[in-house]
Amino acid sequence: MTRPVRLGMVGGGEGAFIGGVHRIAARLDGEFELVAGAFSSTPEKSIRSGKTLNIDEKRCYGSFTEMAKAETAREDGIEAVSIVTPNHMHLPVAEVFMEAGIHVICDKPLTTDLAAARAFQQAQADANVLFILTHNYPGTPMVIQAREMVADGKIGKLRYVQAEYVQDWLTVEADNKQASWRGNPELAGKAGCVGDIGSHAYNLASFIAGENVSALCADLTAFVKGRAVDDNASILLRYASGAKGMLWASQVAPGNENRLSVRVYGDKGGLEWRQEEPNYLWYTPFGEPTRLITRGGAAAGEAANSASRIPAGHPEGYLEAFATIYKKAAEAIRSHQSGIMPDPALGLTSLEDGVHGMAFIDACLRSSSEDSCWVEL
Amino acid sequence: MTRPVRLGMVGGGEGAFIGGVHRIAARLDGEFELVAGAFSSTPEKSIRSGKTLNIDEKRCYGSFTEMAKAETAREDGIEAVSIVTPNHMHLPVAEVFMEAGIHVICDKPLTTDLAAARAFQQAQADANVLFILTHNYPGTPMVIQAREMVADGKIGKLRYVQAEYVQDWLTVEADNKQASWRGNPELAGKAGCVGDIGSHAYNLASFIAGENVSALCADLTAFVKGRAVDDNASILLRYASGAKGMLWASQVAPGNENRLSVRVYGDKGGLEWRQEEPNYLWYTPFGEPTRLITRGGAAAGEAANSASRIPAGHPEGYLEAFATIYKKAAEAIRSHQSGIMPDPALGLTSLEDGVHGMAFIDACLRSSSEDSCWVEL
Amino acid sequence: MTRPVRLGMVGGGEGAFIGGVHRIAARLDGEFELVAGAFSSTPEKSIRSGKTLNIDEKRCYGSFTEMAKAETAREDGIEAVSIVTPNHMHLPVAEVFMEAGIHVICDKPLTTDLAAARAFQQAQADANVLFILTHNYPGTPMVIQAREMVADGKIGKLRYVQAEYVQDWLTVEADNKQASWRGNPELAGKAGCVGDIGSHAYNLASFIAGENVSALCADLTAFVKGRAVDDNASILLRYASGAKGMLWASQVAPGNENRLSVRVYGDKGGLEWRQEEPNYLWYTPFGEPTRLITRGGAAAGEAANSASRIPAGHPEGYLEAFATIYKKAAEAIRSHQSGIMPDPALGLTSLEDGVHGMAFIDACLRSSSEDSCWVEL
Amino acid sequence: MTRPVRLGMVGGGEGAFIGGVHRIAARLDGEFELVAGAFSSTPEKSIRSGKTLNIDEKRCYGSFTEMAKAETAREDGIEAVSIVTPNHMHLPVAEVFMEAGIHVICDKPLTTDLAAARAFQQAQADANVLFILTHNYPGTPMVIQAREMVADGKIGKLRYVQAEYVQDWLTVEADNKQASWRGNPELAGKAGCVGDIGSHAYNLASFIAGENVSALCADLTAFVKGRAVDDNASILLRYASGAKGMLWASQVAPGNENRLSVRVYGDKGGLEWRQEEPNYLWYTPFGEPTRLITRGGAAAGEAANSASRIPAGHPEGYLEAFATIYKKAAEAIRSHQSGIMPDPALGLTSLEDGVHGMAFIDACLRSSSEDSCWVEL
Repeated sequence: MTRPVRLGMVGGGEGAFIGGVHRIAARLDGEFELVAGAFSSTPEKSIRSGKTLNIDEKRCYGSFTEMAKAETAREDGIEAVSIVTPNHMHLPVAEVFMEAGIHVICDKPLTTDLAAARAFQQAQADANVLFILTHNYPGTPMVIQAREMVADGKIGKLRYVQAEYVQDWLTVEADNKQASWRGNPELAGKAGCVGDIGSHAYNLASFIAGENVSALCADLTAFVKGRAVDDNASILLRYASGAKGMLWASQVAPGNENRLSVRVYGDKGGLEWRQEEPNYLWYTPFGEPTRLITRGGAAAGEAANSASRIPAGHPEGYLEAFATIYKKAAEAIRSHQSGIMPDPALGLTSLEDGVHGMAFIDACLRSSSEDSCWVEL
Repeated sequence: MTRPVRLGMVGGGEGAFIGGVHRIAARLDGEFELVAGAFSSTPEKSIRSGKTLNIDEKRCYGSFTEMAKAETAREDGIEAVSIVTPNHMHLPVAEVFMEAGIHVICDKPLTTDLAAARAFQQAQADANVLFILTHNYPGTPMVIQAREMVADGKIGKLRYVQAEYVQDWLTVEADNKQASWRGNPELAGKAGCVGDIGSHAYNLASFIAGENVSALCADLTAFVKGRAVDDNASILLRYASGAKGMLWASQVAPGNENRLSVRVYGDKGGLEWRQEEPNYLWYTPFGEPTRLITRGGAAAGEAANSASRIPAGHPEGYLEAFATIYKKAAEAIRSHQSGIMPDPALGLTSLEDGVHGMAFIDACLRSSSEDSCWVEL
Repeated sequence: MTRPVRLGMVGGGEGAFIGGVHRIAARLDGEFELVAGAFSSTPEKSIRSGKTLNIDEKRCYGSFTEMAKAETAREDGIEAVSIVTPNHMHLPVAEVFMEAGIHVICDKPLTTDLAAARAFQQAQADANVLFILTHNYPGTPMVIQAREMVADGKIGKLRYVQAEYVQDWLTVEADNKQASWRGNPELAGKAGCVGDIGSHAYNLASFIAGENVSALCADLTAFVKGRAVDDNASILLRYASGAKGMLWASQVAPGNENRLSVRVYGDKGGLEWRQEEPNYLWYTPFGEPTRLITRGGAAAGEAANSASRIPAGHPEGYLEAFATIYKKAAEAIRSHQSGIMPDPALGLTSLEDGVHGMAFIDACLRSSSEDSCWVEL
Repeated sequence: MTRPVRLGMVGGGEGAFIGGVHRIAARLDGEFELVAGAFSSTPEKSIRSGKTLNIDEKRCYGSFTEMAKAETAREDGIEAVSIVTPNHMHLPVAEVFMEAGIHVICDKPLTTDLAAARAFQQAQADANVLFILTHNYPGTPMVIQAREMVADGKIGKLRYVQAEYVQDWLTVEADNKQASWRGNPELAGKAGCVGDIGSHAYNLASFIAGENVSALCADLTAFVKGRAVDDNASILLRYASGAKGMLWASQVAPGNENRLSVRVYGDKGGLEWRQEEPNYLWYTPFGEPTRLITRGGAAAGEAANSASRIPAGHPEGYLEAFATIYKKAAEAIRSHQSGIMPDPALGLTSLEDGVHGMAFIDACLRSSSEDSCWVEL
């Protein structure tokens, strides 16, 4: 290791959830040092947040534009910025820092609508900085293992993908900070559950399957009275290769805390991964007994092991996977700094993937509004 | 108990699977005595099968019409008949016995197409004998418990039903007796997987939810080359009450032996039951920890307990649930014999339910053939 | 199949639990026909019980000696008798029927003390009838599979056996019929929990390991005030081969309904079976991922499959395993009737095994009374 | 937060496992900054290790005494030191730093023999610095929850403790660095498995039960030929309160990666926690259905939640629990620095606990060498 990458953060002030996760993830492997932030648009709040993070008061900004300017001017200015604002601010913030030559690590989803995403992608076509979307589940060793096994033909030709992401925290009207911005179409986009977690499940399914969906048919619902966006999404999937699938996302299913799972089946075998027991991967070669592949265990491959820190049987979880994304981001940034394009095998979610994720959400909204007709992506 | 009900059987000769299951189910609680059978349309085969079952050679028939006639003529003739032939023969056989005043216990699904089912229903509108379809899963104590809890408002207003029935035995072309008649549209109907097991999942979901689907949108596929019927079905569901749902049935998903499960969610709670661990029911009142309700255990109610034979922790399985259907059938038959209409609370699958099951299959076929449009039932 | 074996029963009248289990087990595969019984020592009660079982009133006896005499005198008299009385009556009843040339199927444990067991064994040394003890867990397909795998060297040289049988129904003083005779040293013997369920766990462990224990060290406790026999037993085990082990039996552990499990480990692999999910066997060849072997599934062997009735994924349970013991008993009886000694590979628990089981219980009592010193069996 | 605590490390150089874990744990919540180290007794190696950790070369020492001296002399010297050497060096290192007024965070177990532990305890009786032993499992939210529930009487009067810690990595002779020092009595003590992991299970059981064992009876074995220390330990436990228990530790049980679990039972309920699914706690109030208490979920209490970072359903694991120990250590250190004795409710493992842990190991060795007689602690 050389010295840690100097990191700034936009958003993630008091009361925020995902900002704290990004900070732990950045810190866990010692690859980043958080040295600046625009944690809130209210300067005092930003400073107060920065203080609790042991950040120099002078580098706690009340505006991200000010921060980009000031940090660019410093010799020891930030090399990368983490964007953890509500969704609608992701791209405006990213734009400013990318123009300042600062690498961007951005929370998902990319933004609130597809057109904005495409416009941004076009505008940044020639940017010479990295843009990394923090879909965290691809940082999980057993997810990496699954992807590799599919790519290696262990399940044969892909036939079916069953993905689901089911929660219960929005079963009744919630009135916390999290729930309120996520349910506001202005801040989070027209998609509710399908954008918040359906997009995670879709990203994960695509990552494992090694294929994007080509068409879908969706039925979105807001079960809770007065809710402006969907809280449940039922989606049928079709892949160009002939594979099919199903995706269910819900935030109103009592008894499910964060039940994300992906099952993929081919003509030679099947794989199942469940987020709530992330260290396990169930693998069945057709006609043989099911194997339990464990993180760090006998059948785990090199790619999975390199994303893992501790021996088998000592569970790693959500934060470790998130930290792996940051670790890979650091590797990508250092590679870029030495003039070499980062290895795509790192498996980081790119701007292109992010735009595709928006296309997925957009297609769900369109299909659902047309009585669940098939819509192409 | 009075004496066992005298039972005959049509089908279920050598090499058959479900016939043996019906016989064990009929025998387990001692409520039936199998005394006659048309086990095969080849008389010698029928006799040979009957011999291994310790049945009087004279009551082993080569034709079901002959059997109906002969048994009606005997003073100790059969009081009920179990029909375990391939699907297309269910109704012709049932008709003959019902006309002879013999109660019918018929394997599912009712028949191979909806029109035939409706015609039969109409024809039998005034029949004074019982017709019982052996959907076995409603015989499971924890399924009965789930149904009762939904009816009692434990999950509040129903919002979502997730049902799946996933197997792997048809992942490659199979060439056994089971696979061959089930894959033949003449014998089993135009529906493959959706008829064979999708119908089970649907019946179970409706039984638990206490509601039938009013519209659906389906995508049926035959993944194995050359297969004449679907081996995978993805289905979106809508209920008249506003609830929605999803049903996935597959016979080509390696690693799944007989993975049938139903999850139901309302605005106050959720329930989950999985066929492969049938003695458990997971119940979450929203905002409280999940409870594990066990067969015979602390939270099992009277209805569930009355369908159970042994103490908690001593697992009952598939055969016991099937036997419970027979036990209830015996109760219904005895009730009928004493001139009282059987209690609907027995929860037996009726002819009406069977016709609705055919309507479900028919709707799936229609929707799928019209690019997954919504189809009403 | 030829005709069913004619069976009588001693004990198992109204309110009894295990009698009903034996009857279902005897009936399930159609290999026995229950035709006589001394269900109670009060003649009217015996008749009343017999009636509910559809047994000829004349063959419902108020005394087992009378029954033995009368049945021997009939041409169609019983060929075998099931003894399901409290433990202290097992041998006196068995003696009478064995002397009458009637095969005995006896509930476990053999009796209430070791001396009586040995005396009986000696007295019956030359008897020409079968004595079968119904330890039911060896009738479970995945237990048979485990035993076979150990014998085949799949786990290498045996090193360690961890067995446990944990329940909670005696956590507080119970006042039902079951609890009362089991807690009475006169009726059930000086051993409480260790005799009732510890003996099951030990029998099962020995069955799978293929080895009996040579010495043990036990700490028995009665946690509930006023209880005359132990309700918890902690036992260390040593085998002549050098293997060691541990056995825990408890009836006062809240949250455990019937948690019986056996884990065996050798220098090449390990196996784990849990009674509450009986269709699964977990197998790990050292250095490879764990495999889930399922009843009827890809890796199940012939011995296991021959003890199984339905396809993989359709769970069989406690009653099916018990029925397999009866099925094998019928096979043994028919073999004996045709003058051939039954195949030991049937794996039925013999009188000799039963005496060893008593020696195990006796050793536990002795060790515990001498401050957990090592005691040889 | 004020600024991070300045931390040094002794041991944990190249190829070490636990040193890296301590570093992640110290870093994860940002409460410590690693600024110095004696990572190896070879100065070049120490510097090389320090470099990869981004530590100033001048503060990478080849000797811990030198480090203690130099760091004490600096104004920005370390405030605490993490000791992650082989066991026999723990106390000599601790002594030096404690004399220098530097707080000690020491890996477990305390040392290699009881006499040394007691001598150290006596010698440090008046030391005015903190000594914290890093038993990590008490840092797990659901373990904290279990302890609290036992203390609050949720299971009533404690009756039985079942603890086990089972691994398989030493099934055959291993030849890596980890295995070699752990199997060397000079470096790791006379206890093998019982010291390495049995002590963890015991510490955890005591933490949850809120009681230490008063007597035990042990049978230790070295199953692998030529192994100088035990690789398997079977232990019976007795508590002064009348409770009893059982502890099994093994490193030769194939199929077990790191299977640590504790079950505690009282006269009113039971609790079960399994390290490999650390976010779950199973709780059964006697006579009611089992509840699944989850980290961050509906029934998790304040103490557990304060040791948790992310919402329910997003699994935390081994590293997070270890980090919680460090977080509490930082809190204790800051408290001490402001002249207030740290709150015992923090639940950190003290020197006294560490000595008791040595007494446990010592008692196991003594009992086993005297044919498993009962030995008092």
